[in-house]
Amino acid sequence: MSLDVDTQSLVGIRRDLHEHPEPGWCEFRTTAVIAERLRRLGFEVHVGPDAVELTGEERFPGEETIDRRAERAIEEGVDPDLVDRLRAGGTGVVGVLERGDGPVVGLRTDIDALDIHEAEDEDHRPAREGFRSEHAGESHACGHDGHAAIGLGVAETVAADESFDGTLKLLFQPGEEGWGGGRAMAASGHLDDVDSLLAVHLGLDLPTGTVVTGADFLTVSGFEVEFSGTSAHSAAAPHEGKNALLAASTAVQNLYAIPRHSDGETRINVGTLEAGTASNVVPGSATMSVESRGRTDELCAYVEDRMESALRGAAESHGVDVSITKRGTTISADHDPAVAGRIADAIADVEGVTDVRTHLAVPGSEDACYLIERVREHGGDGTYLLVGADLASGHHTPRFDFDENALGIAVRTLSRALAAEAAG
Amino acid sequence: MSLDVDTQSLVGIRRDLHEHPEPGWCEFRTTAVIAERLRRLGFEVHVGPDAVELTGEERFPGEETIDRRAERAIEEGVDPDLVDRLRAGGTGVVGVLERGDGPVVGLRTDIDALDIHEAEDEDHRPAREGFRSEHAGESHACGHDGHAAIGLGVAETVAADESFDGTLKLLFQPGEEGWGGGRAMAASGHLDDVDSLLAVHLGLDLPTGTVVTGADFLTVSGFEVEFSGTSAHSAAAPHEGKNALLAASTAVQNLYAIPRHSDGETRINVGTLEAGTASNVVPGSATMSVESRGRTDELCAYVEDRMESALRGAAESHGVDVSITKRGTTISADHDPAVAGRIADAIADVEGVTDVRTHLAVPGSEDACYLIERVREHGGDGTYLLVGADLASGHHTPRFDFDENALGIAVRTLSRALAAEAAG
Amino acid sequence: MSLDVDTQSLVGIRRDLHEHPEPGWCEFRTTAVIAERLRRLGFEVHVGPDAVELTGEERFPGEETIDRRAERAIEEGVDPDLVDRLRAGGTGVVGVLERGDGPVVGLRTDIDALDIHEAEDEDHRPAREGFRSEHAGESHACGHDGHAAIGLGVAETVAADESFDGTLKLLFQPGEEGWGGGRAMAASGHLDDVDSLLAVHLGLDLPTGTVVTGADFLTVSGFEVEFSGTSAHSAAAPHEGKNALLAASTAVQNLYAIPRHSDGETRINVGTLEAGTASNVVPGSATMSVESRGRTDELCAYVEDRMESALRGAAESHGVDVSITKRGTTISADHDPAVAGRIADAIADVEGVTDVRTHLAVPGSEDACYLIERVREHGGDGTYLLVGADLASGHHTPRFDFDENALGIAVRTLSRALAAEAAG
Amino acid sequence: MSLDVDTQSLVGIRRDLHEHPEPGWCEFRTTAVIAERLRRLGFEVHVGPDAVELTGEERFPGEETIDRRAERAIEEGVDPDLVDRLRAGGTGVVGVLERGDGPVVGLRTDIDALDIHEAEDEDHRPAREGFRSEHAGESHACGHDGHAAIGLGVAETVAADESFDGTLKLLFQPGEEGWGGGRAMAASGHLDDVDSLLAVHLGLDLPTGTVVTGADFLTVSGFEVEFSGTSAHSAAAPHEGKNALLAASTAVQNLYAIPRHSDGETRINVGTLEAGTASNVVPGSATMSVESRGRTDELCAYVEDRMESALRGAAESHGVDVSITKRGTTISADHDPAVAGRIADAIADVEGVTDVRTHLAVPGSEDACYLIERVREHGGDGTYLLVGADLASGHHTPRFDFDENALGIAVRTLSRALAAEAAG
Repeated sequence: MSLDVDTQSLVGIRRDLHEHPEPGWCEFRTTAVIAERLRRLGFEVHVGPDAVELTGEERFPGEETIDRRAERAIEEGVDPDLVDRLRAGGTGVVGVLERGDGPVVGLRTDIDALDIHEAEDEDHRPAREGFRSEHAGESHACGHDGHAAIGLGVAETVAADESFDGTLKLLFQPGEEGWGGGRAMAASGHLDDVDSLLAVHLGLDLPTGTVVTGADFLTVSGFEVEFSGTSAHSAAAPHEGKNALLAASTAVQNLYAIPRHSDGETRINVGTLEAGTASNVVPGSATMSVESRGRTDELCAYVEDRMESALRGAAESHGVDVSITKRGTTISADHDPAVAGRIADAIADVEGVTDVRTHLAVPGSEDACYLIERVREHGGDGTYLLVGADLASGHHTPRFDFDENALGIAVRTLSRALAAEAAG
Repeated sequence: MSLDVDTQSLVGIRRDLHEHPEPGWCEFRTTAVIAERLRRLGFEVHVGPDAVELTGEERFPGEETIDRRAERAIEEGVDPDLVDRLRAGGTGVVGVLERGDGPVVGLRTDIDALDIHEAEDEDHRPAREGFRSEHAGESHACGHDGHAAIGLGVAETVAADESFDGTLKLLFQPGEEGWGGGRAMAASGHLDDVDSLLAVHLGLDLPTGTVVTGADFLTVSGFEVEFSGTSAHSAAAPHEGKNALLAASTAVQNLYAIPRHSDGETRINVGTLEAGTASNVVPGSATMSVESRGRTDELCAYVEDRMESALRGAAESHGVDVSITKRGTTISADHDPAVAGRIADAIADVEGVTDVRTHLAVPGSEDACYLIERVREHGGDGTYLLVGADLASGHHTPRFDFDENALGIAVRTLSRALAAEAAG
Repeated sequence: MSLDVDTQSLVGIRRDLHEHPEPGWCEFRTTAVIAERLRRLGFEVHVGPDAVELTGEERFPGEETIDRRAERAIEEGVDPDLVDRLRAGGTGVVGVLERGDGPVVGLRTDIDALDIHEAEDEDHRPAREGFRSEHAGESHACGHDGHAAIGLGVAETVAADESFDGTLKLLFQPGEEGWGGGRAMAASGHLDDVDSLLAVHLGLDLPTGTVVTGADFLTVSGFEVEFSGTSAHSAAAPHEGKNALLAASTAVQNLYAIPRHSDGETRINVGTLEAGTASNVVPGSATMSVESRGRTDELCAYVEDRMESALRGAAESHGVDVSITKRGTTISADHDPAVAGRIADAIADVEGVTDVRTHLAVPGSEDACYLIERVREHGGDGTYLLVGADLASGHHTPRFDFDENALGIAVRTLSRALAAEAAG
Repeated sequence: MSLDVDTQSLVGIRRDLHEHPEPGWCEFRTTAVIAERLRRLGFEVHVGPDAVELTGEERFPGEETIDRRAERAIEEGVDPDLVDRLRAGGTGVVGVLERGDGPVVGLRTDIDALDIHEAEDEDHRPAREGFRSEHAGESHACGHDGHAAIGLGVAETVAADESFDGTLKLLFQPGEEGWGGGRAMAASGHLDDVDSLLAVHLGLDLPTGTVVTGADFLTVSGFEVEFSGTSAHSAAAPHEGKNALLAASTAVQNLYAIPRHSDGETRINVGTLEAGTASNVVPGSATMSVESRGRTDELCAYVEDRMESALRGAAESHGVDVSITKRGTTISADHDPAVAGRIADAIADVEGVTDVRTHLAVPGSEDACYLIERVREHGGDGTYLLVGADLASGHHTPRFDFDENALGIAVRTLSRALAAEAAG
């Protein structure tokens, strides 16, 4: 089995995507680039509405934002008709390569960027070496540029591997960062005949060379919260105001004070808050986005339950109304130890892999869980792999950057694992 | 009319009381000292249960505290039988002197001390000059020692004033500092035949020489608040706790954030908070005492209304219960401008009085209002006088002390005013 | 002296401005309309950069907002060249009418609208009667449309009053609502020869028919506050975050808890708060706008001092940095009782005026104080008048509307007062 | 080897201690009862100052509390001379039994009760069956009555076990509940020749029949925090106050909001808060007890670091001073997997033991860690065992009670383990 990976080419793909980051449901150029490459490698390619099926539970950027990014993609050379289709029915790509009668094996990667402005100074390698994001306020600060490059690297490797016996499905999922892309791809039907599904993430504080074959994630639920009070002139009639910002501030403090749970990890975050209209007006409204997480679905529900008390109590404290809208929940599919162990065995001697672990509880969330769940419902199984990569700065920070050597390691590891799974 | 006041004697009385401060409903020695002096001056004297009638709305110190202070009074020479009577039916004194057929005029002073430990260093005059409180943790930090001395000085002056035509009632009220003494004395019946009632306070940021003849006060309501949650081991089961201290802290912050009202002054205070049992236990209960005030009864009610929202919201925020017990309300009886003007005229040339004002809105509360209200209900009227006194430090602070020259000024002013009211 | 006011015309002007509200420094159409009318009445007219002098302490809307409103004004028929001049040098109008050798008397009105979306339902008269704001999100919710109409009504009345002996200066000030327009107009020099300056406000909880001739305002200071912490992934590395939103929430609660002051009214408001970027990121920054006020400059400084402690303490609590930028202070020029009394006498029998008061302490702020101050520095004097108007809803609320009968009363009152001042 | 345990006798001892609970450093009767029994079994007995050496880092109850409990112990029949010795030099017992030349093996149990008032109703078995605490406000709500009984049961079993070859040291440690007893017993020197030390805890959510042979604990640090501000009359001069309670409330909210750490468990608790003196006084002081914990010493230090910021920031927010006094730290000695495994093997077939686990991370803290650490410093080793017991209610709650069948299981398990360790 050949595992020769053209690292230079991987780096090239990654840097091109890095320069053109596109957040959730706006991966127009990204979708086009991936589809084009897969086609050239002989894959049967499904894009956008043929790769995902919107379920109604997705979250989308504002109309205006999507418009702007769509125009940008067209300016960057994407076919306007394709952009139109993706806008209407969703982004993302599924590539299929039939190579014999063996099992159907799948690899899911995610491809969306973040609304984070990338660091501009010379200390930041992408800036120094000229592949910094060209899109102000957006960047690949979670490494999905690398994930997409890995998917394409695996495509190339497996396409060239004559011994591969089975069907390979590569799923390039859009909108992983809280946009509900996982659910939409799970609903597409492409996973229903998959026997073994792998998913992958780079970095996550694991050094280059380390591979985890069975990662578990936190369940996460997202909420939009709106406090509605009464505006009033802050000097002339402060007593007529019902201060929505005071309610929100009370809520923020009490949300972060939700007690830890001795059964396992929990998380709470108020990611954004916006309130008020003018400095001399008692704020009559305040909106915030909140996330609860737990190591298990139960722990996440515990946080959610306490959250609701804190929100309702804050509203009552200041005589305002509160509405709580659940954006959705990303479940935490446990890995199957058998699959994790099998893959650990298969990749033990992959070049560059220095440390293999079969389990890690990751303090993050992943909607790949919906895809794995779907596969299980249809009789298959799957696991989530972590491929270590030395980082310049943590995920979701403006200076995020990773060791590109991890790209080759990931492609070799996944190609080997997929081949092994295909071989049964 | 003679207004010769024996200042030395006034200072002596004041300092003796200052050394033996007794907080509300524990004025055993104070009652005995006052009664004794009045008797010697020929007054008909009513003490304790004959001076006040408990209404059931009073607040009392703990049993143990009363015991300790009763024993102390006996050790200080008070007749044990008298102490027993006062314990059972209340403290305080009413002295009556009939001197002709003229109207019944009254003077109300208050006599209780505070639970404040008096400053001990030489910079504090009472310490330096040897009349500091002998009762650790208790002191006359509001000047009621001076008020009692003034009442006795007026007794002496009027008793010696042959031209006085009328009946003088001196009401030495117990428990003014939030204990409900005003209500109890109002209920006694002693005020029902009073035609004109004066009440007096020293200091209040007015310099020696200033007299205000019509002071208005804030309405005040007091509350005991109890949050009841669930204790739990803070490390082993923090999630099982319902944290009453977190609820109380949330409440404290939101209570002080009650909006100002553009119709007039408001106040809120959380005077005490006690919570929890041990450092490694999530606090299951918390109690606090809260006071709301307003320039008018309506403004006080506004604060109370917001207070209730803040308390209930805080409880809901943390899943605990809250009980709110109203200790009582002290109303804000408006002064009668006619009486204030009449008295201002009468005292204009009193020795030592350099500035007479007919009105001041005082940012404090006074249960003398209940006595004035009672007099009005029976066809009489009254007003509240402030007698300026330079202060070493604000009321209710450990270093409170006042210019004793104000004692003579007050006795002369009040004797003159009472004589004028008696003269019709 | 003729005081015939064409009420129908006043209402027409007011409603036209009401339909085209323009917030601070964007009063392009408003400036044009006022200038045009004054010119027709024979006034010497100074617009924009000739009416104000920017001092560098102004606050301006965002570039994009100004652009949009400038384009809108042009679409509404304003000369593009004029719009360009106003954008560059400021908005506003000064009209001068010389009518003899008498003193120079001035009237200052303000003309800017607010960023408040006007109510749309039929219960709201402007909606019902068809003169609701055509500018979404903007409205004359403080009655400056009425103020501008009053200024133009006075222009017409005085122009027609042959007995008027003196020079009339009408100052239509831009940007009163926290934008610093008062300072800029004071700096223009137009006030330096004014002997007597009047300013006016409608409504303020006074019923139609009431006029106050000496209003005092609160000193107000405005601040932009920015908390800068450290973003981090809220699930993977919450401990690496320094939460700027938690700091801001702590600050909000402690700001509103700044103690009341017994020397007089104080106010604090956090008008806006914006924090965070995404629901799964610990917020690394938060900005808010804060206002402190006091009945005197000292009381405002007291609030400011406590504010700073609360802000710095909140930052330290969460290990973040805070920067506090003072936007400016609007002073509280005390009225001159002599001027107030003189004018009260002059207007006693004006038609429609049923109640004249010489003093009111208004719980609001006004940058007219800068103009009065400037006049005083040059030897003149002035006062601030309030003209009562029944309101449908409080100032700065979406349903604000006033009794238009007040327009005629105001024009008659001010014309009479200006004539009297001109007559010496 | 005989493991016959007289369960009836164990239950008797436990219930006697349960009826006479004595919190930390007040275990006068408990010490006497244990010493007496050990002497009868032939142990060499060291009590009080001979069993512990005070290090200066202990925390003690108030003088008055100790007095009261000492008198009570004497009334309950304890020799007054012994009580005097224990008051002066500390409580606790060490019993030594030499039975051959084998290794020195030790068992540490703890014996103090808690300041928790035991439930009184019939649903609570101790009340129903007549062995409820006779000491109001104090109870064995953590099961140390059982621990002491287990120690005495082991004493009896080993004394009767002729095959036991070695020296047995039984350490009955005082003041485990935050009083620093572990440190004091470690300093005594009794552990320096111990080769293998076991410690034990009942319950902790493990069902009867389960035994854990290697428990790890959280590091915990305790702090006394005092905020010192300025009192002031809440109505007359609120602006002169520096509100220590507002500072404390701010601190409470921000302490509980200390971010979770992704490296492992952390805990924070504010166990008690006391503030203020009277309802009409701005609270000038507030004291609270705070505990930080972490799975490792580093994690505990992280919490402590954040705690300090929150406390200092809260003080600055309200212009008050804060003093932070560290009461002490209880370290988290990791168990030695070798010892845990060895003991698991030894006890596999003990009667009543149905489930043996070699490791559990307990979300609590234990100063037994100081004793194990001391043993390690001198070349020995040790481990902490958990013996499951069905509970009626959680540890540290008024309704705590445990399945007494666990007593026999514990005595058999520990006797077997000690014998095995002695056998090498």
